[in-house]
Amino acid sequence: MTRWKITVEYDGLGFSGWQRQPDAVTVQGTIEEAIKNFSDEIVTLHCAGRTDAGVHSLAQVAHFDLNKPTNGDVIRDALNFYLRLTKAVILHAEQVDENFHARFDASERRYFYRVINRRPPTPLQADRAWHVIKPLDINAMQKCADILVGTYDFSTFRAGNCQAKSPIRTLDKFIITRNGEEVIFSITARSFLYHQVRNMVGTLSLIGTGNWDFDMFQSAFKAADRTKGGPTAPAYGLYFQSVTYPQK
Amino acid sequence: MTRWKITVEYDGLGFSGWQRQPDAVTVQGTIEEAIKNFSDEIVTLHCAGRTDAGVHSLAQVAHFDLNKPTNGDVIRDALNFYLRLTKAVILHAEQVDENFHARFDASERRYFYRVINRRPPTPLQADRAWHVIKPLDINAMQKCADILVGTYDFSTFRAGNCQAKSPIRTLDKFIITRNGEEVIFSITARSFLYHQVRNMVGTLSLIGTGNWDFDMFQSAFKAADRTKGGPTAPAYGLYFQSVTYPQK
Repeated sequence: MTRWKITVEYDGLGFSGWQRQPDAVTVQGTIEEAIKNFSDEIVTLHCAGRTDAGVHSLAQVAHFDLNKPTNGDVIRDALNFYLRLTKAVILHAEQVDENFHARFDASERRYFYRVINRRPPTPLQADRAWHVIKPLDINAMQKCADILVGTYDFSTFRAGNCQAKSPIRTLDKFIITRNGEEVIFSITARSFLYHQVRNMVGTLSLIGTGNWDFDMFQSAFKAADRTKGGPTAPAYGLYFQSVTYPQK
Repeated sequence: MTRWKITVEYDGLGFSGWQRQPDAVTVQGTIEEAIKNFSDEIVTLHCAGRTDAGVHSLAQVAHFDLNKPTNGDVIRDALNFYLRLTKAVILHAEQVDENFHARFDASERRYFYRVINRRPPTPLQADRAWHVIKPLDINAMQKCADILVGTYDFSTFRAGNCQAKSPIRTLDKFIITRNGEEVIFSITARSFLYHQVRNMVGTLSLIGTGNWDFDMFQSAFKAADRTKGGPTAPAYGLYFQSVTYPQK
């Protein structure tokens, strides 16, 4: 039995999210099926960060165990053959220590959220970014994002059906940049609550458009109450960017 | 009668090219229809550079004449309303001199061609870039691209059904850059022959992968014969970037 670590890119629009479901096309189910086609083995994939329907990934990481003797390049190319008609692709596959765990060993996860900020919609970026018409004030949003960095109760940005035991999380970085019409929210943490990134971005958008001021944002955050937060930004603007594992 | 200049973004996959056709969805036909819905006037759109099916545009420019009194912002927003279910959008609309001509007045057109250069395919960039597996040697391609800059007979890169009177064109710039897995070919000229950019990129890809050397490329170019050139790169990697009009 060998443990394999794979890095996966996918177009979130092609799937009903990561997690296997009996009657829906999911990333996990699709890749598990490709592994079965390749090896005749039924495996369970464990990923670094489960994503919702519509959320994209540049480099999701997952692991699984296989009896079949093989190597990383063969796994990558064989799975990509079976995935060729899907919206997922294996970027890399490598053997890892039998104790490696894609979810529990991750020390840092990075997401970014893309907004196209202009009046006309954008056919070339449809389903790839959130279209926000009103001009976003980057400095005002960054000032609010700054107070989220650290260890806090993030209940204001936590979806009702979040299964985490604690609403406490540590945000390491939250950087908002503009490049022309494109606004990028880059967020780094060891782990996130369910919908935390999309709820933070959605709430910050109220600051960016001037509907909320700093004090309203701070009060909402300190209330630790989801009903005080802003809207959930749409899934298709969110990208799972990368995950870090400590050197052993 | 007022002449209007519009700037148009479109996803090339949504259309059978720019030019109006009786039984196909084209950019010209779609926007002319939107103008008719807005103004009850039947107009003819003239664009800076007609593009093929699959070719994208960041800022195509076109002009048309309208009797209806209106202004640029109203035209932009009204046309975008009628275009809302299509893959085209009006970025800008402004009144221009009645002698302005989007095609004949253009002094410089810029295209870029996007390649994703890696082994696995890319679901997030499917239909947005050409996927080339073999590593491309940027320096070798740039050395060949350099000999295309200037005024020459470009017959080697001219499609058989090109309607231009002369195969002589003047290439102003041809710059090839790599950013990680992405390779961009940026090309500037007053005007291009039919399929010229895609045929140049396709032929340069033979250099990039080492199938051709510099002398073969130079001989093919000097032969001024399409049958000596390389393949036509796919339409969906090509972007109409911008067009320049001289100050009057």
